[in-house]
Amino acid sequence: MKQVTGYAWPMLGRRYEGQQCSVARTLEIVGERWTLLIIRDALLGLRRFDEFQISLGIATNVLTNRLSSLVDNGILTRSRYQAAPPRFEYHLTDPGRELATPVLALMQWGDRHVAGRRGAPRLVRHTTCGGAVAERHVCADCGPVDGAEVAIVPGPGLRVG
Amino acid sequence: MKQVTGYAWPMLGRRYEGQQCSVARTLEIVGERWTLLIIRDALLGLRRFDEFQISLGIATNVLTNRLSSLVDNGILTRSRYQAAPPRFEYHLTDPGRELATPVLALMQWGDRHVAGRRGAPRLVRHTTCGGAVAERHVCADCGPVDGAEVAIVPGPGLRVG
Repeated sequence: MKQVTGYAWPMLGRRYEGQQCSVARTLEIVGERWTLLIIRDALLGLRRFDEFQISLGIATNVLTNRLSSLVDNGILTRSRYQAAPPRFEYHLTDPGRELATPVLALMQWGDRHVAGRRGAPRLVRHTTCGGAVAERHVCADCGPVDGAEVAIVPGPGLRVG
Repeated sequence: MKQVTGYAWPMLGRRYEGQQCSVARTLEIVGERWTLLIIRDALLGLRRFDEFQISLGIATNVLTNRLSSLVDNGILTRSRYQAAPPRFEYHLTDPGRELATPVLALMQWGDRHVAGRRGAPRLVRHTTCGGAVAERHVCADCGPVDGAEVAIVPGPGLRVG
């Protein structure tokens, strides 16, 4: 990651809650530990309230709130799979499935830096050829590139000052 | 993202705090909103306590705690740049810089799904050619692949039950 001196400051300002930063706006939706772990579980194939509850071991009211928030924000859809008593399951939307990229990037960072001696608990594979899949910076023209060759520059949505 | 039925459950169990999941272990270090925004600011080139404080607008004691935690966890290093009064600056370590991948993946997800009409506040560019850089799934054999062709499978560090 190239250091971006000169314009980096004061590009952020105090209003990072607004349109100024898409990291902050994304964290307003998924930036709570249980929420990201619910999304992880959904990516792993969990669907039902009880499955999430047992996986995460959190209080049912907390889980209910987090699932409702994810439905309200268009990350999950909720559908009834049983009428009496009513039971619901949760499926990732297309935007929800796209969160696989940051979630797997967090997972692979952890595999490299905080996993135990036994190695990665989970691997990511290309279904077509079985090859190992990593989350990487990809240049539209050159293909995968290293972090040292990447710079963050101002975009059209940035208001300075 | 391929749905991984059959083995996904009960692969997680209740002990996700342990080696069982590198997402959870990573979130134990960076899974707090201010912490990820401090890392974002460091990736953007901010170095000094006052710069982080003005950028984030958080209480100094909260910022002090978060910076100390990031130093303790090997994400930032702390060095004195002025003797009287003592002033410190913070630099990303190599593992810290590697967090660019998940942070930029969160940013780009936000650009697509929650950015305002003005467009992305920041763009990611390849310094060598100027091309647009995106965070993507990359197969070691095939290059960049779509989420629909990606599966999460058990790894050597996984203990079931």
